[in-house]
Amino acid sequence: MAGSGAKTFGILTAGGDCPGLNAAIRGVCRAAHDRYGMSVVGIADGYRGLIDGDCRILRPDDFSGILTRGGTILGTSREKPFKARAREETNDIGEDKVAAIKATYQKLKLDCLVVLGGNGTNTTGYLLSREGLNVLGLPKTIDNDIMGTDRTFGFHSALSIATEAIDRLHSTAQSHSRVMIIELMGHKAGWLALYAGVAGGGDIILIPEIPYDIKAIARHLEKRTASGRSFSIVAVAEGALSVEEAAMEKKERKKYRAEAGAPSVAYRLAREIEAETGLETRATVLGYTQRGGIPSASDRVLATSLGTAAANLLAKGDYGKMVALQGDRIGAVELSVPAGKVKTVPQDHYMIDTAMAVGTCMGV
Amino acid sequence: MAGSGAKTFGILTAGGDCPGLNAAIRGVCRAAHDRYGMSVVGIADGYRGLIDGDCRILRPDDFSGILTRGGTILGTSREKPFKARAREETNDIGEDKVAAIKATYQKLKLDCLVVLGGNGTNTTGYLLSREGLNVLGLPKTIDNDIMGTDRTFGFHSALSIATEAIDRLHSTAQSHSRVMIIELMGHKAGWLALYAGVAGGGDIILIPEIPYDIKAIARHLEKRTASGRSFSIVAVAEGALSVEEAAMEKKERKKYRAEAGAPSVAYRLAREIEAETGLETRATVLGYTQRGGIPSASDRVLATSLGTAAANLLAKGDYGKMVALQGDRIGAVELSVPAGKVKTVPQDHYMIDTAMAVGTCMGV
Amino acid sequence: MAGSGAKTFGILTAGGDCPGLNAAIRGVCRAAHDRYGMSVVGIADGYRGLIDGDCRILRPDDFSGILTRGGTILGTSREKPFKARAREETNDIGEDKVAAIKATYQKLKLDCLVVLGGNGTNTTGYLLSREGLNVLGLPKTIDNDIMGTDRTFGFHSALSIATEAIDRLHSTAQSHSRVMIIELMGHKAGWLALYAGVAGGGDIILIPEIPYDIKAIARHLEKRTASGRSFSIVAVAEGALSVEEAAMEKKERKKYRAEAGAPSVAYRLAREIEAETGLETRATVLGYTQRGGIPSASDRVLATSLGTAAANLLAKGDYGKMVALQGDRIGAVELSVPAGKVKTVPQDHYMIDTAMAVGTCMGV
Amino acid sequence: MAGSGAKTFGILTAGGDCPGLNAAIRGVCRAAHDRYGMSVVGIADGYRGLIDGDCRILRPDDFSGILTRGGTILGTSREKPFKARAREETNDIGEDKVAAIKATYQKLKLDCLVVLGGNGTNTTGYLLSREGLNVLGLPKTIDNDIMGTDRTFGFHSALSIATEAIDRLHSTAQSHSRVMIIELMGHKAGWLALYAGVAGGGDIILIPEIPYDIKAIARHLEKRTASGRSFSIVAVAEGALSVEEAAMEKKERKKYRAEAGAPSVAYRLAREIEAETGLETRATVLGYTQRGGIPSASDRVLATSLGTAAANLLAKGDYGKMVALQGDRIGAVELSVPAGKVKTVPQDHYMIDTAMAVGTCMGV
Repeated sequence: MAGSGAKTFGILTAGGDCPGLNAAIRGVCRAAHDRYGMSVVGIADGYRGLIDGDCRILRPDDFSGILTRGGTILGTSREKPFKARAREETNDIGEDKVAAIKATYQKLKLDCLVVLGGNGTNTTGYLLSREGLNVLGLPKTIDNDIMGTDRTFGFHSALSIATEAIDRLHSTAQSHSRVMIIELMGHKAGWLALYAGVAGGGDIILIPEIPYDIKAIARHLEKRTASGRSFSIVAVAEGALSVEEAAMEKKERKKYRAEAGAPSVAYRLAREIEAETGLETRATVLGYTQRGGIPSASDRVLATSLGTAAANLLAKGDYGKMVALQGDRIGAVELSVPAGKVKTVPQDHYMIDTAMAVGTCMGV
Repeated sequence: MAGSGAKTFGILTAGGDCPGLNAAIRGVCRAAHDRYGMSVVGIADGYRGLIDGDCRILRPDDFSGILTRGGTILGTSREKPFKARAREETNDIGEDKVAAIKATYQKLKLDCLVVLGGNGTNTTGYLLSREGLNVLGLPKTIDNDIMGTDRTFGFHSALSIATEAIDRLHSTAQSHSRVMIIELMGHKAGWLALYAGVAGGGDIILIPEIPYDIKAIARHLEKRTASGRSFSIVAVAEGALSVEEAAMEKKERKKYRAEAGAPSVAYRLAREIEAETGLETRATVLGYTQRGGIPSASDRVLATSLGTAAANLLAKGDYGKMVALQGDRIGAVELSVPAGKVKTVPQDHYMIDTAMAVGTCMGV
Repeated sequence: MAGSGAKTFGILTAGGDCPGLNAAIRGVCRAAHDRYGMSVVGIADGYRGLIDGDCRILRPDDFSGILTRGGTILGTSREKPFKARAREETNDIGEDKVAAIKATYQKLKLDCLVVLGGNGTNTTGYLLSREGLNVLGLPKTIDNDIMGTDRTFGFHSALSIATEAIDRLHSTAQSHSRVMIIELMGHKAGWLALYAGVAGGGDIILIPEIPYDIKAIARHLEKRTASGRSFSIVAVAEGALSVEEAAMEKKERKKYRAEAGAPSVAYRLAREIEAETGLETRATVLGYTQRGGIPSASDRVLATSLGTAAANLLAKGDYGKMVALQGDRIGAVELSVPAGKVKTVPQDHYMIDTAMAVGTCMGV
Repeated sequence: MAGSGAKTFGILTAGGDCPGLNAAIRGVCRAAHDRYGMSVVGIADGYRGLIDGDCRILRPDDFSGILTRGGTILGTSREKPFKARAREETNDIGEDKVAAIKATYQKLKLDCLVVLGGNGTNTTGYLLSREGLNVLGLPKTIDNDIMGTDRTFGFHSALSIATEAIDRLHSTAQSHSRVMIIELMGHKAGWLALYAGVAGGGDIILIPEIPYDIKAIARHLEKRTASGRSFSIVAVAEGALSVEEAAMEKKERKKYRAEAGAPSVAYRLAREIEAETGLETRATVLGYTQRGGIPSASDRVLATSLGTAAANLLAKGDYGKMVALQGDRIGAVELSVPAGKVKTVPQDHYMIDTAMAVGTCMGV
C-alpha cells in the first residue's frame, strides 16, 4: 500500500469524541505526508475499524480544512479489544479481536499505528505495542486525566464551555437568590470542575478526589447568607461523592444511589442542600455540550503541535511513545506511562490552594 | 417622594429572570430621568417588594453600566398577588396582598408602576390597572409567548445559546453515529425549540403545539439511516408531548410520567426512540443556562427601545398599555391584550413550513 | 439539462460575501429539490459565472452540511454586466456581457435564475427580468439597506460581531480614560452603526444620514468629562461625514480627505476630537471581520425562511420578485422595489429616538 | 494605616490594560485580606497614583464580583518614573517622581507594593526594590513576552480573539479568492501572531523575530495558486519587518515607512504582495479589540493563581520577586529576571516547527 521507501501509517480516534481531534489528525497527516512523503490510512470508528478492516487511504484533501471542525472525521467507538479478549469475545469471522487487529495491521503493511484517545485508547495502544505493533499515542480528553502530559487537548475547549455556562448561571442565581449547582464531566478526575469552578468564581467546588461533607457545605452556605450574599454557585464533577458514599462498597453505593432516585450527583446534592439549609436550590447537568463544537484556539495549537511531533517520531521510527506537553516543550513518554492509569488531582495541587485562597469551599 | 411637578414611578421585574432585563430597566430609567426629569423608585423582587414595601430611590449611578449585565439588578420573584387573593392569603400584617400593593403605591405617591415580565406579570399588571393603578408593561421572556408583540426580549439571547448548544451536539452525534436529543425551554409554546431547531439544522423538532407520533419519528430516523446519514439531532420543547399524552386528562398524564420515571420529555423520548429503532440515543437538558448571561445585541436593542418607549408613554400619561414590537416600529397594546393568554405557534406559521421545506420532521 | 416536467433553476451569489449565504442556498435548494423535485445549477462567482458559462449541477450532498458555514460555496464577484454594457465592454468572445448571460441562461434551459445579493445584485436581477429572464431575488447584506424587506440576512451576524467589539473597547476606554472610536461598515446607510451603537452603549453614534458637527461632539464629550465620566465610546459608520464635507462636491470632498491623509473617517475624527477637546483618542477600524464567519442563529433562521419561500415562488412560477421579511411574515415584492435604491435610516426612525433617549449624541 | 500586626500593601496596575487584571487583583486581595487579614491600598492609574498620592483603602466589596470584568478597576497609565528621573522631570510639587513614590510608600506605611504589569512595570518594580521598597510583581500582557514565566495572563484571551478574527476572514478570503492579511499586536515579540496563526490555519505567519523575504512569500502564494487553492491567510505581527528594513538603521527605517505612507505593516505588505503576485489582497488591523473584554477561562485561572501566590509571598515577607507559571506549578523569580528584557520567540521554538510542519510559510 505504501510508496517505495516511504512509510505508511494508520491513524484512528477512539473513546468519546472531543474538540481538537480533527486538528490533531490534520497535524499528524500534513507533517507526515507533506514533510516526509508518507502514506496515510484512515481507520474508521476507533479500534473497531481495525478489527473489521474498515480503512481507506487519506489524501491531502481529506485532511485539509478540518482544523476548526468539532468531532472526528474518522468516527470513533468505545471498542476495547483486550477487554473483549479477556471475555473471550470474537469478531464475525470467529477471530479474537486482538488477532484481527494484528491481521489488519499486517495486511495493510503499516509501519506504525497512530492512536488518538484517552486513557483507554493509549492503554490499548500500549498493549498492542507489547504484541509487537509499532504504536504512537496522542493524549486526547476533556478530562485532562492522562499521566505523562501536562495537558490533554480537548480540556481547554471544555473549560471554556463550562466556564461560560457558570457565568450564565450567576445571573439566575443572583436574580432569584438561589443556590445553583452545575454538574460537569469528570468521573474519576476533577480537573474540569476545579478549573471551571475557579474560572467561574464558584463558591463551592466538589471533585472526586475530595469526598464532601454535606455539613461543611451547609456551614459555608449559611456563612454566605449571614454575610449578606443571597446566592451561591456550586461546581460539581459527575464523579464527586460524599464521605458516606466514599466509605461504601461499590455495590452498596450503587444501591444507595438507585434508592435516591437521582442518577446525577447534582440532583442528589440539590436535595441534600435544601434539606440541610432550606435554601432554594436548582441543578443543571451540562452534559454532552461540554465536548462538542469548534475547538478553542488553545486546543488547536496543542493538538497541532502534538500531531506534528508524532509525525516527527514516526519519521525517526521512534515508536512505543505517547507525545506530551512538558512545561514549555513538546516531548514524549513511553506508552507504559499512561497505560492503565488515571491522573487525578493531587491533594497538594496549587489550584486547590488557589480555590481556597479566594474563599471557595472544597467540601470539607 | 417625587419632585414638584415631575412624575415618580415605580419599576419592578417579576417571573423568571432573562437576558435584557437590565437593558430595559436602563432604557426606562435613563429616558424617564434624563429626558423627563422623573424620579424612579426601584422595587425589590417583583410584586413581593410592593407587598412588603421593599423599595428605594434609584439614582443615575444605579442604572448606569448595566446594559450588558445578565439577570436583574432589582431581583425577582414568582409572587402572584391575585392568586393569593383567590386563596385568601394575607401578608405579615394580615392584609390581602393586593391591598398591600395598593397601599404601597399610595404611600410612595407613585404616578405609575412599570412592570417587566412575562404573561403572569403583565396579567397582574392588567388586574392592578383595573383596581385603579396606573400601569405600564414590558414584554420579557425567553419563551416569546406574549400576545400583542412580535417578539419579547430575552428570546434572541436564548435562541443564540440554544443554537450554539445544538451546533456542539452535532460533533458528538456525527462522531458516534448517534441520535442526540436536546430539550429546550417552552412549557406551552414551542417558539424556542422551533427557531433553534431550524437554526441548528435539527432533523426532528417537537413542540407542544403539535403532539408527536413516535411512529412518524421512527420512520423519519429510519429513512435517514437508509439514506446513509448515520446520526440525527432532535430539538424538543420541554412541554412537547406525544399524541397519547395529549389525549390524557392532566392527572392521568402526571401519573403516566411519574411511572415512566423520567421527569423530562428528553429522557422519555430517548427511551421511546431506542425502543422503536434500536438507534443509540442520548439526551441533554439545557436547563437554566438558556436564560442567563450577557444579553445578545439584538435583545439589548429591543429592550432599550421598549424601555425608552415606555418612558415616552409615561411622560404622556398614556397608561394601561404594554409596549410592543410591531413590524418595523415600536407601538403599544392595551394590557388586556396579553392578560391571561399565551401566544403559541400557529399551525400555519411560516417557520413550520420552513422547517418542513428543508426536510425536518415535525413529529407527524 | 432539466428532468422532464420538473423545473431547472440557476443560483448565484453576488457582491460582498456575508454570513447566511450558505444557509440561504441550502434553503432554496433543499426545498426546490426535495419538495418540488427541481434540478439545481450552481453558478460560480456571481454574474461572472453566467457570462463565462462557469456552472455545474448541484446534488444534495453539495448543499448539505453548509448551514453554519460562513462565506458562499458558490464564490462571488462584483461583476456588474449592465454597467459593463454602458461602458461597451465585451467578454472574451466579443459579446456584450448581458447577451452572454442570456445565452448561458438559454443554453442551460433554465426556468429561473435565483440571485442572492444586495442592492446591486437585485438591481441587475431586475434589469435581467426586463430582458425577459425569469428572476427571483433574495436580500443579503450586512448593511440592511435593501428596500422592500424589514431586514436582510447578514445584518444580525454583523451586529453581533460589532457589538462584541464595542464591548471589548469599553475595557480599554475605561482603564485608560480615553475616547475610543470604532468604525463600522456602512457607506450610505447607518443601520449597523446605529444598532451596534445602541447595543454597545455608545456615547456618540455617527451615521451617513446625519452629518455631524464636531462642535456638538466636543460639547457632549466635555459634558461627560464634567460629570465625572472619564471615557467615551464613539461608533461611526464608514460613510459618516461632517457637515462641512456634506456641503462639498464629491471631487472636492475626495481632495479634502486625501489631504487629511486619513483614508478612514475614524482616523480623521480622532484627530478632530483631540484637536477640539484635548482628550486622548484612539481609532479602530473593524474591517472585514464584520462580515465573515459562522452566521448568527437569527440570520440562519431568516436566510432559511427566505430561501424556502423563494423555492415556493419558483414552484408557482411567480417570478420577478424579491422575497422579503414583512413584519411577522415572509412575503415578496416586485424586483423593481429594491432596484436602484438604498434604504437609509429615516430621520424619524424609532432607533434614533431610542439612542437619544438614553443620552447618546447623534452628532448634532 | 494598617491594623496592628497585620500587614498593609499597595496594589497598582500599569501599562496597557489587558484581560485578567481584575481577576488578578481579586486573587491577591481576597487571599491577602481573607486568609491573612491584611489591609489593601488601591493605587489609581499605575505609578502615577503613587506619585500623586491618589490612593484609597479597598474593602472586600471593592474586589468582589470583578473576576469576569475586562480592564482594571484601578485604572492604569504608562507613567515611567525612572525614565522621568533620567530626563530630570519633576512632579507638581517639584519633586523627582521616584522620590515622590517613596514618600507616598512611607506615608501609607506600606509593607509592600504589588505591581501588575508587563516588562516596563516589572522593570520599574525592580528599580524600586533596589531603592529599598518591598515589591512583588505579576506578569500581565497579551504579548506573552516576559522573561521568567511560561505564560503571562492576558495572552490566552488575546489568542482567542485573534483566532476568532482569522476564522472570520477565512470566509471572505475563500468566497472572493483573495489574500487576506491580519495584523496582530506584538512590537518585538511574535508570540500572538505565531500562536493565532497556527490556531487559525494561517498560510503565512510573519513575526519580528524572523525578517521576511517578500520573494519567498510570493513564491509560497504562487505555489498555492498553482495547486488550486485560490485564497490565502497571512497573520502578521505589528512589529514584523522585511529583511531590507531589518538591515536599516532605526532612523532610516522610520523615513522609509513614512515615505511608504502606510503606518501599519499590513498595508505595506498588501501592496508588496499585490505588486509581486497580482493577487487581490486586503488588510485588516485588529487593533484594540485584541485586549479588551471578558478574560478567557484560562486567563482567569492563571491570574487568580498568580494573585493568590503573590499573597502567599506577601504573608511570608518574601519580597523582590515576580510570581510566575513554571511548567505545572506556580513559582517565583527575582525581579531582576524580567527587568529590562523582552522574551522573544526563540528560532528553535517548537511552535515554529509546528507551523512549518503543517505547511505554513514563516516568510523565509
